[in-house]
Parts: sequence; structure tokens; C-alpha cells
Amino acid sequence: MSVSLPSDFNRIAIIGVGLIGGSIARAVRTAALPTHIVAYDASDAVRARVRALGLADTVAETLPEAVSDADLVILCTPVGTFEAIARAMAPHLKPGAIVSDVGSTKGSAIAAMAPHCPAHCHLVPAHPVAGTENSGPDAGFATLFKGRWCIVTPPEGTDKTAVARVCAFWTALGSNVEVMDAQRHDRVLAVTSHIPHLIAYTIVGTASDLEQVTESEVIKFSAGGFRDFTRIAASDPTMWRDVFLNNREAVLEILQRFNEDLTALQRAIRWGDGDTLFNLFSRTRHIRRTIIDAGQDTPRPDFGREPATPSEAETK
Amino acid sequence: MSVSLPSDFNRIAIIGVGLIGGSIARAVRTAALPTHIVAYDASDAVRARVRALGLADTVAETLPEAVSDADLVILCTPVGTFEAIARAMAPHLKPGAIVSDVGSTKGSAIAAMAPHCPAHCHLVPAHPVAGTENSGPDAGFATLFKGRWCIVTPPEGTDKTAVARVCAFWTALGSNVEVMDAQRHDRVLAVTSHIPHLIAYTIVGTASDLEQVTESEVIKFSAGGFRDFTRIAASDPTMWRDVFLNNREAVLEILQRFNEDLTALQRAIRWGDGDTLFNLFSRTRHIRRTIIDAGQDTPRPDFGREPATPSEAETK
Repeated sequence: MSVSLPSDFNRIAIIGVGLIGGSIARAVRTAALPTHIVAYDASDAVRARVRALGLADTVAETLPEAVSDADLVILCTPVGTFEAIARAMAPHLKPGAIVSDVGSTKGSAIAAMAPHCPAHCHLVPAHPVAGTENSGPDAGFATLFKGRWCIVTPPEGTDKTAVARVCAFWTALGSNVEVMDAQRHDRVLAVTSHIPHLIAYTIVGTASDLEQVTESEVIKFSAGGFRDFTRIAASDPTMWRDVFLNNREAVLEILQRFNEDLTALQRAIRWGDGDTLFNLFSRTRHIRRTIIDAGQDTPRPDFGREPATPSEAETK
Repeated sequence: MSVSLPSDFNRIAIIGVGLIGGSIARAVRTAALPTHIVAYDASDAVRARVRALGLADTVAETLPEAVSDADLVILCTPVGTFEAIARAMAPHLKPGAIVSDVGSTKGSAIAAMAPHCPAHCHLVPAHPVAGTENSGPDAGFATLFKGRWCIVTPPEGTDKTAVARVCAFWTALGSNVEVMDAQRHDRVLAVTSHIPHLIAYTIVGTASDLEQVTESEVIKFSAGGFRDFTRIAASDPTMWRDVFLNNREAVLEILQRFNEDLTALQRAIRWGDGDTLFNLFSRTRHIRRTIIDAGQDTPRPDFGREPATPSEAETK
């Protein structure tokens, strides 16, 4: 989608200041957008921390205070909270305001927010495909969205200018922007994000439940591959519970495919069918190269982590 | 196990110069061990490359030439090759020589090598739990083993001095060393390495086979979690085929547990049982912290990859 507008919001309200909300606030500052940032979080402790970190121009004490006068409201809370927040803030939204979010499931986000979005406002959901395993306002950083994709999923008939303004906002934060419908988004993200998280959570759980292998052994020998999964399985539990509850159909569908494929490999192992194993293992290698070429991961071996000396890191 | 000997091999032979063999050669040099390094690889191209890189004092043209006079012979080839190599080199081993390896499956490694190991030699299998997704002599680096664990799995009755010398060798390369029996090793590594690899290969295969989601979409939006799996799924296909064929029982056993756990989560998603999801997702978070505290992974978010600016990396 071509975006010609610069980002032009006078006042944005960030509702929920965790990793993503906190990163948006920092990124808006770093991009020097001429925007007044209002932040609100239901937690007293988080609001206090946001004040201490100086992340916002205004830290609102209530949701109505946060959204009134805002040109762009972005929900940065777990998707399970969207309906209640959308309902509560609706009477306080000003005409022409754009309501957006950063939720990982878009069909359910629209279902939760659309019924409460006043006719004089625009609903333009978005999903920045970026994050880390850490949570909370301290975990955010300004470059989180740089070079990552943000998917914008306007319901049919959404005002085109409103969509373009949201796209321009994410472009200003360094993201690549793609517009697609919510249903397609949910299916694509089930593959690239939700199922990988589910599998990571599962294997980490399985490993810690084994009677024959101690947790100490799992920890010590985790460099064999397991430790990679623990990063993803350290992600925010509330957020991820809500993801799975809100993208059930697509997740179950892809999970079924994954199960079939895993069963086929299980059978190949049981019957000593090396060719089936080798063929799959050869086929999967090129995808990493393509991801690196697309700028979506580092070319450094082992994600470039923990080089023993700076010179070692430089020569890789 | 307490290791008091310094590493004292006059001549070591590295059979197979890929990521691990190449890293051993570099690590021996970096540790300044007073050891003559002989390298051999069945591939003409690899031998030429080893010469060009100057990785060894001698690049042998044949296996017999490589192992004769060696005090320590280390097989660094896929485990599927061990029997043939052990048989071929047996007549050329000198009395007192230690035969070792770096294979990821130890029960099968012993089964393959022990029958061919002359009575005047010592079989001391080992497994450095370290690696990257890259292969070949160019992929190796001197610090690969630093701070990682090396598991030594001597068969019952193995000469204690021989075991201590192999332990001292790996300690000199920077590894932590643990001695355990082969069967336990195979079960532990099934959890911490083999199953994680199998799952990663599977999900990457599943994603590339979907009709409804294009490969381009999978690539673009891989930062949602999928890209982590592609690193592991880019590992050497021959090596990993051999791992699964050679650790069948333990892999199938752990896989069964994983399947049960995944099915329970699938059911929780289908029935909207958020508590089951939340409880697991909360439980898995602390394991990452323990791994980081044990020095087995970086504390930096997202493995510290791709910070946008050097200052950003410094502050994390």
C-alpha cells in the first residue's frame, strides 16, 4: 500500500504500557513525531513506573481522561481485555478519532471492538510483528519495530484516509506495513507465531515434568537446542493465553497439520527410514537463508549470541 | 569428576573436519596445547580447505596415515559412519591410543566402535554439547566449547587414566566436563537436543507445505517466533538423520510425552480452558531464568540479536 502522508496525529493515547506500549512511546519520541503522548495503564505500579521513566507527556489516571481529545487511541493490552476497554472508552472518544490496537489476533479484536466503536470514529486494527520475551514498561525500546512488519487489518468499508494515517504512523516508527484482512492475518500468524509459541511452551513443560531427567540436567545441557525454546516460552502468560483463546480455529487447523507431519517423522524414526528424515532436513535449510536475505533475522551463527571475545564477533 | 592432569597428548588425529572438528583444531591452537594436530577428511575438497585454512600441522591423505602414531583419535563425522571408520582404522592404532568421538548419541557410538577397538587401546566416547547451525571447516571457531558442557561416556571398566586424560583435554578447550553412562546421556540429550531439533524441522516443514499461506508470508512475518525454529532446522541433514536413527528408543519415548502434553493443550484451546493454558505458560517462564543464571544462554532479550545501534545493545 502506498503511503504518502507523514504521521500527523496531534495526540495519541497508549492504553496499556508493557513491552509494546512502552516501545511505541519510546519510538514516537525517537522519531521526533510532533505528537503529545498520553499513557494509561490500569496498574498503579505501572503508571508510577511510566512517570519515573518519563515515557509519556501525560500519564492519565483514568481511561476516559486518557482517550478524550486523542486523535489515535492504541490498545496495547492483552486481547482478552479489548471488549471491556472498547465499551468503557466509547463515550469519551472525540469525533474523527481513530481506534487501533496491537493485538496478535485480529478477527477477535475486531469482534470485540467494532460493536462499541462510535459511528463518528474509525476502527483500524494493527499488529506489529515484533517483540521480545520480556514484559513491562522497562522492557520496551525505541528500535523494536525497526525493519519489522506491521500488519494493518481494517474491516471492509473503513475510511481510506484513516487506514493511510495508521500506516503512516507505523512507517514513521520504522516498520514495513502490509494491509490484509483479519481472517488471513489470523491464519498467517497462526503459522509464524502462535504455533511456534505453543510448541515451545509444550516442550519446555514436557522437559520439566520428566521423572527420569532432572531439571538440573535439562538446564546444563540446554545448549543442544532446548534453550532456544525457553526464550519463547518465557513470553507473557496472559497475553499468550488470550492469543490461543482468540485464534482457536486457525491454531487448531495448523496444529492438526503439524501433528500429521510429526507423526510421519515419528513413524520414519521407528522404522529406520533415513531417506524421509534426510529429505525433510535438507528441504528446511534454505528457508533460514531466505529469512536472512529478507532482513528478518541475523546471519550470525547461533543468533550471534555470546561471542567469547569482541574480535570473534567481528570476524563472523 | 576432579581432573588434575593437564592435557598431555603429543599427537591428536581429528577425523572429519566440519564445524566440530574444525573448532577442536582451532581451540587446541588457541589453548596453546603442545600437541601435533593431524587432520583427515574423506572429502578432497575439505582436505584442501583445511590446508588453506592452516587448521592442522599435518593433513593426512588417508585414514591409516592419520591415526598411526596418534595418542588421541577423535571421530568428528556423523555417527552413521562410526562403525566403518572404527573398523578401518583399528589395525593402524598404536598401543595405548585413546579412541574418542563427538557424536550426539552415545549408546550407538559405543555399539559401533567398541567391537573394533583393539584391546591395547582405550575407548572414551565424548559429546561436546555445543554447535551452531552452520557446517563445514569454515564454520568452526575456537571458542565454541567455552563454558559449554562436554559429556564423557566411558563404557564400564574403561581405564580411569584414559578417562581422566579425555576430561582434561576438554577442560583445556574451555568446557565443563561431566561423566555419565551412555544410556543416561541418550535420554537426557533426547530432551535437551534431539526432540527440539525434530520439532523445529517439523514446524518449518509444515509451514512450507501449507497451501493457504505463502512462503513469502512465512518469511515476512517470521519475527513472530517462527524464525527461531528455522535456525535449528538449518542444521546439518546427514548428522541429524543419523542422530534420530541412532537414538530411536529415547527419542520415541520423549516424543510420546511431548505428544500427550501437546494434545492436552490442544484440548484446552478447543474448549476455551484458559486456566490450563495460563498455568503452563506461567510455569515455563522460570526455566529460562535458570538457564541464564547457569551461564548457558545470554540474558539479552531476543538473544541480543540485531540491535539497531551499538548504544542500544550496551544498555540492554
